[in-house]
Amino acid sequence: MPKFKHIRLLSPVYSDISYRLEDVKDLERDDLKISQTGIPTGVPSVECDFDEALCSPYIVGRAIEAEREGVDAVIVDCMSDPGLAAARESVSIPVFGPRETCMHLAAMLGHSFSFIGIQSRTRPRMERHAKANGLRQHLASVRGVDLSVTDLLHDDGKKLHERIIEESFKAVTEDGAAVILIGCTAFFGCEKIVGKALLEMGYDIPVINPIRTTVSYAASMLDLGLSHSRKTYPFPPEKKRVGYDIPGVVNETV
Amino acid sequence: MPKFKHIRLLSPVYSDISYRLEDVKDLERDDLKISQTGIPTGVPSVECDFDEALCSPYIVGRAIEAEREGVDAVIVDCMSDPGLAAARESVSIPVFGPRETCMHLAAMLGHSFSFIGIQSRTRPRMERHAKANGLRQHLASVRGVDLSVTDLLHDDGKKLHERIIEESFKAVTEDGAAVILIGCTAFFGCEKIVGKALLEMGYDIPVINPIRTTVSYAASMLDLGLSHSRKTYPFPPEKKRVGYDIPGVVNETV
Amino acid sequence: MPKFKHIRLLSPVYSDISYRLEDVKDLERDDLKISQTGIPTGVPSVECDFDEALCSPYIVGRAIEAEREGVDAVIVDCMSDPGLAAARESVSIPVFGPRETCMHLAAMLGHSFSFIGIQSRTRPRMERHAKANGLRQHLASVRGVDLSVTDLLHDDGKKLHERIIEESFKAVTEDGAAVILIGCTAFFGCEKIVGKALLEMGYDIPVINPIRTTVSYAASMLDLGLSHSRKTYPFPPEKKRVGYDIPGVVNETV
Amino acid sequence: MPKFKHIRLLSPVYSDISYRLEDVKDLERDDLKISQTGIPTGVPSVECDFDEALCSPYIVGRAIEAEREGVDAVIVDCMSDPGLAAARESVSIPVFGPRETCMHLAAMLGHSFSFIGIQSRTRPRMERHAKANGLRQHLASVRGVDLSVTDLLHDDGKKLHERIIEESFKAVTEDGAAVILIGCTAFFGCEKIVGKALLEMGYDIPVINPIRTTVSYAASMLDLGLSHSRKTYPFPPEKKRVGYDIPGVVNETV
Amino acid sequence: MPKFKHIRLLSPVYSDISYRLEDVKDLERDDLKISQTGIPTGVPSVECDFDEALCSPYIVGRAIEAEREGVDAVIVDCMSDPGLAAARESVSIPVFGPRETCMHLAAMLGHSFSFIGIQSRTRPRMERHAKANGLRQHLASVRGVDLSVTDLLHDDGKKLHERIIEESFKAVTEDGAAVILIGCTAFFGCEKIVGKALLEMGYDIPVINPIRTTVSYAASMLDLGLSHSRKTYPFPPEKKRVGYDIPGVVNETV
Amino acid sequence: MPKFKHIRLLSPVYSDISYRLEDVKDLERDDLKISQTGIPTGVPSVECDFDEALCSPYIVGRAIEAEREGVDAVIVDCMSDPGLAAARESVSIPVFGPRETCMHLAAMLGHSFSFIGIQSRTRPRMERHAKANGLRQHLASVRGVDLSVTDLLHDDGKKLHERIIEESFKAVTEDGAAVILIGCTAFFGCEKIVGKALLEMGYDIPVINPIRTTVSYAASMLDLGLSHSRKTYPFPPEKKRVGYDIPGVVNETV
Repeated sequence: MPKFKHIRLLSPVYSDISYRLEDVKDLERDDLKISQTGIPTGVPSVECDFDEALCSPYIVGRAIEAEREGVDAVIVDCMSDPGLAAARESVSIPVFGPRETCMHLAAMLGHSFSFIGIQSRTRPRMERHAKANGLRQHLASVRGVDLSVTDLLHDDGKKLHERIIEESFKAVTEDGAAVILIGCTAFFGCEKIVGKALLEMGYDIPVINPIRTTVSYAASMLDLGLSHSRKTYPFPPEKKRVGYDIPGVVNETV
Repeated sequence: MPKFKHIRLLSPVYSDISYRLEDVKDLERDDLKISQTGIPTGVPSVECDFDEALCSPYIVGRAIEAEREGVDAVIVDCMSDPGLAAARESVSIPVFGPRETCMHLAAMLGHSFSFIGIQSRTRPRMERHAKANGLRQHLASVRGVDLSVTDLLHDDGKKLHERIIEESFKAVTEDGAAVILIGCTAFFGCEKIVGKALLEMGYDIPVINPIRTTVSYAASMLDLGLSHSRKTYPFPPEKKRVGYDIPGVVNETV
Repeated sequence: MPKFKHIRLLSPVYSDISYRLEDVKDLERDDLKISQTGIPTGVPSVECDFDEALCSPYIVGRAIEAEREGVDAVIVDCMSDPGLAAARESVSIPVFGPRETCMHLAAMLGHSFSFIGIQSRTRPRMERHAKANGLRQHLASVRGVDLSVTDLLHDDGKKLHERIIEESFKAVTEDGAAVILIGCTAFFGCEKIVGKALLEMGYDIPVINPIRTTVSYAASMLDLGLSHSRKTYPFPPEKKRVGYDIPGVVNETV
Repeated sequence: MPKFKHIRLLSPVYSDISYRLEDVKDLERDDLKISQTGIPTGVPSVECDFDEALCSPYIVGRAIEAEREGVDAVIVDCMSDPGLAAARESVSIPVFGPRETCMHLAAMLGHSFSFIGIQSRTRPRMERHAKANGLRQHLASVRGVDLSVTDLLHDDGKKLHERIIEESFKAVTEDGAAVILIGCTAFFGCEKIVGKALLEMGYDIPVINPIRTTVSYAASMLDLGLSHSRKTYPFPPEKKRVGYDIPGVVNETV
Repeated sequence: MPKFKHIRLLSPVYSDISYRLEDVKDLERDDLKISQTGIPTGVPSVECDFDEALCSPYIVGRAIEAEREGVDAVIVDCMSDPGLAAARESVSIPVFGPRETCMHLAAMLGHSFSFIGIQSRTRPRMERHAKANGLRQHLASVRGVDLSVTDLLHDDGKKLHERIIEESFKAVTEDGAAVILIGCTAFFGCEKIVGKALLEMGYDIPVINPIRTTVSYAASMLDLGLSHSRKTYPFPPEKKRVGYDIPGVVNETV
Repeated sequence: MPKFKHIRLLSPVYSDISYRLEDVKDLERDDLKISQTGIPTGVPSVECDFDEALCSPYIVGRAIEAEREGVDAVIVDCMSDPGLAAARESVSIPVFGPRETCMHLAAMLGHSFSFIGIQSRTRPRMERHAKANGLRQHLASVRGVDLSVTDLLHDDGKKLHERIIEESFKAVTEDGAAVILIGCTAFFGCEKIVGKALLEMGYDIPVINPIRTTVSYAASMLDLGLSHSRKTYPFPPEKKRVGYDIPGVVNETV
């Protein structure tokens, strides 16, 4: 019987997106509990490096809190992996990011993969991260549905699905993608729809749901007792850090 | 409740190594059964490309058999991943190899990793595979305990442990490794001993047991419904294949 | 006067393809004899990794036999280079593979090259091998004529030539190829037809016939006394290998 | 007569380090004014990714303020380049980081370079950034003086200089460095001392002072009218960002 | 007040192109003088490696002369950087090349760049140089206006501008370029026209004028006292060099 | 019977080194004639980029002459490959360089190779060229015997042999080289001595003589009718080239 595990999603937004737990609820089992929390301040969605900067300190704060509460692993609930390295430095429990995790997993499921995200303008950022992970030659393309977040909120999902299928099809037939990586953690449920649509068009291609995949992967790492190397992520040196309402930092003005 | 999964280790040797199941037995649970099989012919251990060539056809055969028996995923039980791509082409269930899996996982656990295997002479092969996976810049070194398989068999483990710890220590302090990847599936149990020894020497470094890790990873992929891309691994075209006692091949002389 | 050399083609198929010697016959001279042999079992053609697995042990066997008979060098007669590393380990004479040889030669004849093979579905495999050889950035594209082997057998060559010319033209004009590498050892004679057709269309592009090129290259290496590094390809350790009708292996059931 | 330029150093620390302007004062001229500002909250020094996370939002804030005040370019005054991409997205004036700038410049001054920074434990971070910039093969080594920041504050510079010279010498003679890149913006003045010491030991090696170099480089880019590509750094989409006391963000609790 | 600097353009052609100084005249100031010289023999323009070979010895000669005359830095005035490494070996003053300089600068201004040069046939050469600098993955494309030099001479600039804008637009919209690098030092003035045209089409993209950029960069390096590593560019060993009318070489027939 | 071939070595020095033909004389046969020529002016040996610049135009001239005289292929007789690309542009016969040829061949003979040349200071140049060929990860090290050319001339070979063996041994045991590439075309005969010495020390390692290897390789390419791609090396555009006493160039002062 595997030991009990509590994994927490750290959503880097102030909006209440507790409904996101639905996407992973069926992964829970007797030995696995999944919780979720947002952050108190920052952004309603992460679309650029500025958004990443605003949420990152609070992601670290939530990771520290989680560790103190006995959570076994945390997952940054966003394809930009905001605060990933900083959080790894700051706690002893493992911290996972769906971008890093899913790029490596995609590279094992096929010889090349494409991101299908919200906006094609994220291409430079994704290419930069693929390079830093040594996986640039596995990245077939980065494509976006190019619908605004607002559009998405007022869509019943139909337009979104149409667009994701359309871009995934182009990724497979024009860019040479062998694996589709859903590029936004908000697109949940899409992976099945896209996978089915591609299959009907004759392409048997794995489609990765980033959050579900990262949760399951994190549970596996916990079962194995594996965490990140302290050599790569040494603890932050002690000193007076101020101005944030997060554990270990003095919440005052200097 | 996750769906029931049956994962099978395909050991690429003719010797009875069913005891290897012990290494992963505690990973079993209500929804996960692990079985093991060897192959009827070939080699008693895999140490070079020739050994790989001799066992690969039978690994494919065992993968096909496993699929027919309703097994949900198979794992090539060897750090050389013999027959991995061929088996992926031949079945619809996912096929995992510990070398590929653990190199990518190691790359996520730290910025660089070292293999500690049986023999240092495998360095060229490991470097070649790291390159093919885009991970050459993550590979700090390949080191071997350089004990013969025979020596290992007559060792009560003490000499082996001493040597693995010694080489792991050098990998961390001289080669810059942030993660240790146990380079032979036969070294089971070692990961804890090495990890503890490094910790006592002041290095908090993850040490990866390849088979346990691959089993847990495979279970996770099954829970997620993910398998390899048919585009990367298309089915073998139909034609008359002969001379092997494996499913789908005519066992006769041409 | 260069020393006498006997080079043997090891065709990885059970069909009688002794006619393949015709393609290289004119390369023979007083000091160079070329022989050919198939293997007794396996596949009629090599189109995927499974086919590679089935023929590889016998390629090693034929290499060992050739060495015992005094042959000076062997060539794996297939663009998949099946059994190449295993054979190099197993004998002291040099073993050449047309894929490895011609990728490097193509990289010297121009800044980028394309494979034109039988099937475009081999793209992932070729990309993987180009990466492992450090030549991914030289690979402009992999294209296939996408005719079945059966079609090819019933073709008088016309359709095949049309398709190779068509795909070569696209490789040069759309993919930026500066060199064409005929991607199948069965396409002999094509290199002249393609080269001439490209020239008529205004492109003075080298077109590489893989087997002829590898034979000539092997003869050159023999004249120079160069063979593969024993450090990269150490001899297989001695142990009981069983179940194959090949030299050095016990042909019995365990 | 070149147009007037105002460049501002954005020091990512709350301590008063206005004395840092001394390091660049002599670069001022009639058409170039250099100012400096710290940030109101965060850390007294940047030594890890957590420190980066804490200062990044305020660096963006300071960049926006600077643009509003008519400053022509800003420089993140730290070898970790905290907030660089986020700041580039957020303003129309160019934003420079000494790490990015000096790695590329070092790659032009010689075939390989070494960082000599405060702590050797930053090696993984520097390797990661070199990779992301395509310059991993130019990076000879990352070395640290391994003195604590506190030690440095109570040192009259002598110990620091000794250690930097020592590590620079090793970088040149053991690691093959052809260029030394001073790895901390706090080490000012060191470049001359190190350069002279190396020359006396027989090595004519450029030694790069990161902040002086970046200021001069920034002035050059301004003279040329060059700024960062809006395609790579598109403006952040408009939405309600909250909780920080920085321009464009609502300073309230959600 | 920065020290006085004299920078000289070394144009690798025998034609009188002293008018080229106009392109950089406005960069002069009290502390910066720019001069120009051609070479006495060789080619009227540099379009291929043969042209490079013919002008390179005289570029080295001009660099030596410049150093003797007290010039502070020289710039090879051509996007092929002819004689760059040889000149660096031969003098103690820094030697800059616009191709090397601008490729690195472009890589900092955006995630990918395209060359727009005279002829698309220079693509292989530019790809080779990008590779050697580690920047191949930053190179989006190489495009040429494909007008002959003669055409260019009889053009009032209109046709040239049309074609550069056209190719730049394709580079941005089809090839993914985030930065345009004008690929010929003869195209001066174009950068503003192209930048404005792209902006009107909705693309805010930096366009680099290679000579102006390199002059300004060189001035910056001089202000900083930085020059090339003697380890990378050691002085040429002394010996009898003959047959050229350049300093340090005996102008006689052997 | 292969067609008759005339291959010419183009030695890039003015000294009479016709004795160099001795090194390759035994490669001649009925269908292969080897001639040699120096150049009338330039340098007595090639040790740096400046030397390369001085000899390159004359190498092109000698290549043009050779083609006019009916020579079938030329080889630049120097490990720096001076003038290689320029000569390829200028003639229709193939032009080979030992550095390019032997780096690719070494990469096929083992997983990593080291250059053992005259001077260790050539390391930066060799690394640059390995990178440009995509073979940087195959390059184990660059080592030099660090004897001056003058020393070499007065040595009876003994000191040179000692030093080459010593450095080769270090390359194999310390740097991980699997193949030794003799780094200077003047070291002829050494390959056998080094190979034998390494074998006696227990290392069965191929040692490549660059000129013999390139001659034999060139003969092979001629037999196959393969030459360099005109797309990669287009003919130089016609224009007035002046000032050199080489074919196609007007030997006058402008």
